[in-house]
Amino acid sequence: MRVAVIGLGTMGAPMAGHLLDAGHEVTVHNRTRERELPLAERGAARAATPAEAAAGVDAVLVCVSDTPDLDAVVFGADGVAQGLAAGGTVIDCSTVSPSATAELAERLAAQGIGLVDAPVSGGSEGAENGTLTIFVGGSPDHVERAQPILQAFGKRITHLGPSGCGQMAKAVNQVMIAGTYATVGEGIALAQAAGLPLEQLMEALSAGAASSWVLANRAQNMVDDSYPLGFKVSLHRKDVAIALDEAGRLGLDLGVSQVVLAEEDDLIGEGHGDEDVSALARIAKRRSVRP
Amino acid sequence: MRVAVIGLGTMGAPMAGHLLDAGHEVTVHNRTRERELPLAERGAARAATPAEAAAGVDAVLVCVSDTPDLDAVVFGADGVAQGLAAGGTVIDCSTVSPSATAELAERLAAQGIGLVDAPVSGGSEGAENGTLTIFVGGSPDHVERAQPILQAFGKRITHLGPSGCGQMAKAVNQVMIAGTYATVGEGIALAQAAGLPLEQLMEALSAGAASSWVLANRAQNMVDDSYPLGFKVSLHRKDVAIALDEAGRLGLDLGVSQVVLAEEDDLIGEGHGDEDVSALARIAKRRSVRP
Repeated sequence: MRVAVIGLGTMGAPMAGHLLDAGHEVTVHNRTRERELPLAERGAARAATPAEAAAGVDAVLVCVSDTPDLDAVVFGADGVAQGLAAGGTVIDCSTVSPSATAELAERLAAQGIGLVDAPVSGGSEGAENGTLTIFVGGSPDHVERAQPILQAFGKRITHLGPSGCGQMAKAVNQVMIAGTYATVGEGIALAQAAGLPLEQLMEALSAGAASSWVLANRAQNMVDDSYPLGFKVSLHRKDVAIALDEAGRLGLDLGVSQVVLAEEDDLIGEGHGDEDVSALARIAKRRSVRP
Repeated sequence: MRVAVIGLGTMGAPMAGHLLDAGHEVTVHNRTRERELPLAERGAARAATPAEAAAGVDAVLVCVSDTPDLDAVVFGADGVAQGLAAGGTVIDCSTVSPSATAELAERLAAQGIGLVDAPVSGGSEGAENGTLTIFVGGSPDHVERAQPILQAFGKRITHLGPSGCGQMAKAVNQVMIAGTYATVGEGIALAQAAGLPLEQLMEALSAGAASSWVLANRAQNMVDDSYPLGFKVSLHRKDVAIALDEAGRLGLDLGVSQVVLAEEDDLIGEGHGDEDVSALARIAKRRSVRP
């Protein structure tokens, strides 16, 4: 297929690489244009604007940070909507608002363009290895057309309903990890302050009801009080805010997620926004006055 | 070995059964004495009081609900301390305060009696199958003497330090599950209110960073809004309070655990204290005003 990839960050760049490897005809564009170069060396065409990238392709894959960025790339000056022909598909792998996604889908549909929301989980490692989990929303025909593209970097691709449902599923994912990270951090802080032998403890904990991906993969960060990426606090904070916004629309009040949002605001205020989400352990540890 | 088992509830009764199966000479006592009968039929001796049960045995296994119960069984009228000879060991499988455990150990040591704290994780199912995780505290010699007993019903037995360390490790376990249950409940409430297809969603979520024992084993309760035991809200609430008490002594302020404690108080107040901890999802769901 002819595919444009817009947004060549930690996630978008390896995704574009997988599309090249899979034999697709790839055009790339990034606001900071140097980022296009390594992909151009591997055979991708370069485009000066989203509109130019979208001209003549079957699908445009967008991978940006937030809802306003997505709006700008699609409907801004020289945006995708000015280049992509009717019948094309926009595949959005950013994590953005489910409600905004449903609106975007309507606006694009008026031009005969389909929207597939396809936020991913699995981090930079998953993007590089092509093993991402992808939560997909959109009409069945557009989702089917997007499959060859998603399969180039996704291991588990789940279609969950019409436009916005992929984003809603991602919001659920981000809510579920919120309290898990925080509570594992609180447990580690308690264990450490009490002087328990942490290696043996974690082995014992991982055998039972406390076991989780976070415990298995991020407890060591918390023990070491060192939080390399991973997944940034600031991006998770954005995602939890999206989830809480949607929850509010639905009349739900999610107490633990609200606490985690506030704790992440504290972390960002203290300069830890670029650390991995496991830095939530800092909050549990910082009030420690060791006897 | 000659072993007394005091407290024949959901956990203690199957533990005593495993000790009989392993060929130990078992004496049982329970406040409600009828509970002794099924074990007596399998060969256990019965005793009218903890002191009588403790007379002439090598070790006394105690399995009660809370710190005051443990104090009463050990140091109350006709308590274990009046029956057990110097050189004996008290093995406490209850979940109680780490600080109180350290004090209890000192008082027993004055009588030449050892204390091994050995709280368990794995629930009634683990007790029945003999596959419990056991967090152990105590001096190395007493812990070694307790091994044949713990091995009768424990699958993973971890010695974490002196008296109280087993209880502290259990407190860490209860903190780690607190936020996980709550946050999985919040995610399910959001997914359900948004109308996502829950079976497919959970399958997708379980592939990534949101995966946990709670998601794998308790999300279906939350989806069905039905919370069979499991592990009671009221007992987890007690355990989180113990953990927060210890955290306070150590100068730690555990925000998510505090929210979960308050939510569990609400559940208990609403009559849901005997349900499984997954009933925390009720809190996230109850504020829902479906549009």
